[in-house]
Amino acid sequence: MTDARLLDPATMDDPRTTASHALRLRRLGIDTYDEPVIFMRADCHVCRSEGFESRSRVSVRLRDKSIIATLNIVTSDLLLDEEASLSESAWKLLEARDGDEITLSHPDPLESLSHVRAKVYGGRLDDAALTAIVRDVADRKYSDIHLSAFITACAGDRLDTRETIALTRAMVAAGERISWGRAPIVDKHCVGGLPGNRTTPIVVAIVTAAGLTMPKTSSRAITSPAGTADMMETLAPVDLDIATMRRVVEREGGCIVWGGAMRLSPADDILIRVERPLDLDSEGQMVASILSKKAAAGSTHVVIDIPVGATAKVRSIDAARALTTVMRDVGRPLGLEVRVVTTDGSQPVGRGIGPALEARDVVAVLQNRPDAPSDLRDRALHLAGELLQIAGIATGGEGLRQAREILGSGRAWRKFQAICEAQGGMRSPTRPWHTHVVGAERAGRIVRIDNRRLARVAKLAGAPKAPAAGLEFHAPLGTAVERGQPLFTIHAEARGELAYSLAYASAHPHIIDLEESP
Amino acid sequence: MTDARLLDPATMDDPRTTASHALRLRRLGIDTYDEPVIFMRADCHVCRSEGFESRSRVSVRLRDKSIIATLNIVTSDLLLDEEASLSESAWKLLEARDGDEITLSHPDPLESLSHVRAKVYGGRLDDAALTAIVRDVADRKYSDIHLSAFITACAGDRLDTRETIALTRAMVAAGERISWGRAPIVDKHCVGGLPGNRTTPIVVAIVTAAGLTMPKTSSRAITSPAGTADMMETLAPVDLDIATMRRVVEREGGCIVWGGAMRLSPADDILIRVERPLDLDSEGQMVASILSKKAAAGSTHVVIDIPVGATAKVRSIDAARALTTVMRDVGRPLGLEVRVVTTDGSQPVGRGIGPALEARDVVAVLQNRPDAPSDLRDRALHLAGELLQIAGIATGGEGLRQAREILGSGRAWRKFQAICEAQGGMRSPTRPWHTHVVGAERAGRIVRIDNRRLARVAKLAGAPKAPAAGLEFHAPLGTAVERGQPLFTIHAEARGELAYSLAYASAHPHIIDLEESP
Repeated sequence: MTDARLLDPATMDDPRTTASHALRLRRLGIDTYDEPVIFMRADCHVCRSEGFESRSRVSVRLRDKSIIATLNIVTSDLLLDEEASLSESAWKLLEARDGDEITLSHPDPLESLSHVRAKVYGGRLDDAALTAIVRDVADRKYSDIHLSAFITACAGDRLDTRETIALTRAMVAAGERISWGRAPIVDKHCVGGLPGNRTTPIVVAIVTAAGLTMPKTSSRAITSPAGTADMMETLAPVDLDIATMRRVVEREGGCIVWGGAMRLSPADDILIRVERPLDLDSEGQMVASILSKKAAAGSTHVVIDIPVGATAKVRSIDAARALTTVMRDVGRPLGLEVRVVTTDGSQPVGRGIGPALEARDVVAVLQNRPDAPSDLRDRALHLAGELLQIAGIATGGEGLRQAREILGSGRAWRKFQAICEAQGGMRSPTRPWHTHVVGAERAGRIVRIDNRRLARVAKLAGAPKAPAAGLEFHAPLGTAVERGQPLFTIHAEARGELAYSLAYASAHPHIIDLEESP
Repeated sequence: MTDARLLDPATMDDPRTTASHALRLRRLGIDTYDEPVIFMRADCHVCRSEGFESRSRVSVRLRDKSIIATLNIVTSDLLLDEEASLSESAWKLLEARDGDEITLSHPDPLESLSHVRAKVYGGRLDDAALTAIVRDVADRKYSDIHLSAFITACAGDRLDTRETIALTRAMVAAGERISWGRAPIVDKHCVGGLPGNRTTPIVVAIVTAAGLTMPKTSSRAITSPAGTADMMETLAPVDLDIATMRRVVEREGGCIVWGGAMRLSPADDILIRVERPLDLDSEGQMVASILSKKAAAGSTHVVIDIPVGATAKVRSIDAARALTTVMRDVGRPLGLEVRVVTTDGSQPVGRGIGPALEARDVVAVLQNRPDAPSDLRDRALHLAGELLQIAGIATGGEGLRQAREILGSGRAWRKFQAICEAQGGMRSPTRPWHTHVVGAERAGRIVRIDNRRLARVAKLAGAPKAPAAGLEFHAPLGTAVERGQPLFTIHAEARGELAYSLAYASAHPHIIDLEESP
C-alpha cells in the first residue's frame, strides 16, 4: 500500500519522521516502588509519532538493557525538549546515568496473556503456558493490571496440583538455580511472619553443627520491622554473592545470607508485591512461591513452620493440614522432601522486635543464657529436631533430643560464630540511644495482642533501617500486670522517631488488650 | 494500654507529633491518566509519622473533597519541605490550586474487597455486595490492582443473569439518573467501534422527526479518532448540563450531547479503563456497562447495533446471539426493552474518519445528496426503522419504510438543524489545511482492511483534537484499483501531524491489503 509519494523529500526532511525515537535522560528522583514508569513531555516527538498516551506501555532501551515502563505524561516544564525521565526502579534496572540516550518503541504484544485469559475461562494451564507467563512476569512485561488478573485467575483454588507443580517449575526456571553437588541440602521456611520469630540462625547453627548442609538465603523486611537478613546483618555481613556464599558453605556447612540479589525465583518477588494488596489466600501460588525459592536454592529437605492463629496468615489447623498435603505433593516431583510443623501464631516470639533486638534474643539462646527467651529456644529446637530427622541424622523422637544436646553443649554457639567469621567477621549489634517504657494503664491480664500494630510501633521507631530500633516486649499472653507495669519498651536511634512511634501507640490504645482481674 | 507517659511534655512539644498531617500543594504537571497519584518527599513528616511508603494508598482531603491516591515518593528536590503534589487527574478531582493545604491520612479498610474475594472463590454476589463494590469503585477507592481483580473474578462468564442485573442496578445507583416523566424514551448503542460508523445523529433526526423522544448522550473518543460527541461538536455545542439538555429535548424531542460530565454510571468509565489492557470479553460486564448507561439516561427502548467481523469486538454470529439473550434478560427488569441488530463489521463505514470528515458524511446523508455514502445511510435507516418499531410507531416491516420516507422528504434534515439550533447554534465543520493522497502501490482488488491501524493513521494526523484532521477512505472491500489510484486521503491541520501520520502509514504497508487481479 505504500507508494512513492510517502517518501517525498518534504516529508523525509522533517527530522521528526526520520530520527530514531531517542530521548535524553534526566533524573527526576521519583520513586514508584517497583513499577517502572517513564516520564515524557506531552509535546514530545516520540509520543506524537508513536501515538503514546498517558498510561501507555512503552519499551525503553538503553545500551544492551531494555524494560517495559508505564508512561506518565509531563504537562509542565519539569522536562526540557527531547528529555525523558525514569522512576527510580526503572533507572536502576537500566543502570541509567544523567544524559544517557534511550530509544523508545511499542512493546511486542504480550502473547502469554492469552493463557491468562484461558485460565479465566476455566481452562487448565500446561507447562508451556505457565512457562510463558512466568517468563514474561520475571521480565517485568506484565503491568500491575496484568499481574492482578493472573493472580486472581489462579486464586480460589483454581490451580490443581499438576498446575501448581508446573507453576513452581516455571518459577524456578525463570531465575538462577544453585547446585551443591551433594545431598541432603536442608532448609526451613516460616509461612507468614510472626514478630520476633527469628529461629533461623539458631536452627542453622544447630543442624550444621550436626554435620548437615544448610545454605540459608533469607529476605530483608518488606512490610515488617525486620527480616532474617536485617537481623543477621547486625551480627555479620549478609550481602554475599553466590561464589562467596559457596565458599562459606564449603567451609562451615552453612550460612545465613541475603538472597535478594541472587535472582532465585525472581517472578515470585514480583507476584508477591501485587498479592499483598489483594489479600487473596491462593494456596497454589503460596506453595509455588515458597517451594520455588527452595528448589532454586538447591534444597532437598525442607521443614515448613506454619504459625496458626487469629491474626496469622494461616488461621486454622484445617487450613494448615490442607496446605501440608499440597506442599508435600508439589515438593516431591521437584526433588523436595517437605515436612510441615504447625506452631502457635497468637503472639510475638522472644522479646525483641527489630534487627538488633532480635539478634540479642538469638545470641542469648545460642549462649544458653538463663534469661534467654524460652519460647524462641523451644521453637528453634523443634524445627532443628525435625530437620535432623528428615535428613536422616536422627530417628524417632531423637531429633529434638540431639538438637537440645548440640545447643546445650555450646557447639551451636561455636558454629554460629564460625559462620559469622566466614561471612566476613562477627560484630556486636548497635545499642539503642533512646528508649521509652510503655506501662499498663490499669491492672489486669493480657488477653489479646495485635501483632500487626505492634509491628508498626517498631517500624515507626525506625526498624529495620535503624538497626537498633524496635521494641522489647515484656508481657506475653496470660501475664497478670499491675497498673504501670511495663508492657513494652520502645527503642529508637533518633528522638524524632521515638516521638512518631509513641504518637502512633497512644492513638491505638488496643494494641495490647487487658482484661480486668476478677 | 496508653499511659500518662505517652503524653509527656517532651513528646508533645515536638511539632511533628502534634501538627495535623498537612502539606502545601505545588503543581508538578504530571499526567497519570485517571489513576490519582500523590507525590511526597521521602523525608516528609507525614510519611514518617504515618508509615507511608512508595505505592501506599493515601487518603487526601482538600476542603470538602477527598480522594484516595497512590503515593509516589520524591527523592530529589522537586518538592520543597512541607510540600506535596498531585497528578493532573487528582488535581482536577480535588479542584486544587497551588498553595492549597491538603490533609493526609490512612484510608479506611476497603470492606467491599471481601465480596471480591468471595467471588474469586466461586461465590455468588447479591445486590448488597455488588452495591458496596460498585460504590467503592465509583468513589475511586479501588486501585488498578483491585479493579483488575474484580474484573477478572467476574469474567469467564462467572456472572449469572441475576448477578448481571444486580451489577447493572448498582452501576445505575452509583451515579445520576435522569427521569423524563414520559415514555417511550428511545436510545441506540453500538457495541465496539467501527471507524466512521456515525449513524447516531441521523437516527436521532429521523426518530424525533417521527415524534419519538431520543435524548442521546454520547462519549468522546478514548482511543478512537472520533467519538460521536467529537463529531457532533463540529456542528453544534455538545457540552450541555442536564438542565439545558432537558430544555432542548422538551423543545425538539431529542438531542445529541456529550454525556461525560453527567455522572451517568460513573463506575463504568473506571472499569472500562482497566478492562481494555486485559482484553477480557466479559459478557456480564459488557451488558452491565451498556445497559447501566441507558437506564441512567432514562431510556425505555434501546436498539443495540453489534457489528460482527474478524477485527470487530464481536467476532461471530453465535457470540452475538448469546449476547442478545443476556441483553434482553437483563434489560427487562431494569425497564428496558432491548432489540439487537447485527451488522457487517469488516470495514469502515462512510468515507470520513475524524470529527469534521465524519460530520460531512452525516450531513450528506441528511441532505439526501447523491454522493452521500450509501452504507452509512442504509445502516442509519435500518437502526431508525427498528427504533420506530419497538417504540410502537411502526409495525411489521413498516419501520424501515417510514424511516426512509422521513429521511427522503427532508424532515430529518430540518429536525437535525432544529436540534443543532436548540443546542446553541449550528456551525460549519472546519476545513482541512493539509491533505495527502495515498495511492495503490500496484493494481489489484481490496481484500482486507486493518481497521485498527487505519484509525491510528487518522489519530496521528491529529484527530480528534484537531477536528478537521483524519482521513477520507476511497476504496471499500472488493474495489478493483489501478496502480496509483487513491486509497485514502490524509487530512491534517498542521504539517508536522501530516508527517507523523505518513511516517506511520509507510511503516505499516498492510493497512489495506490488495490481491492481484487474475
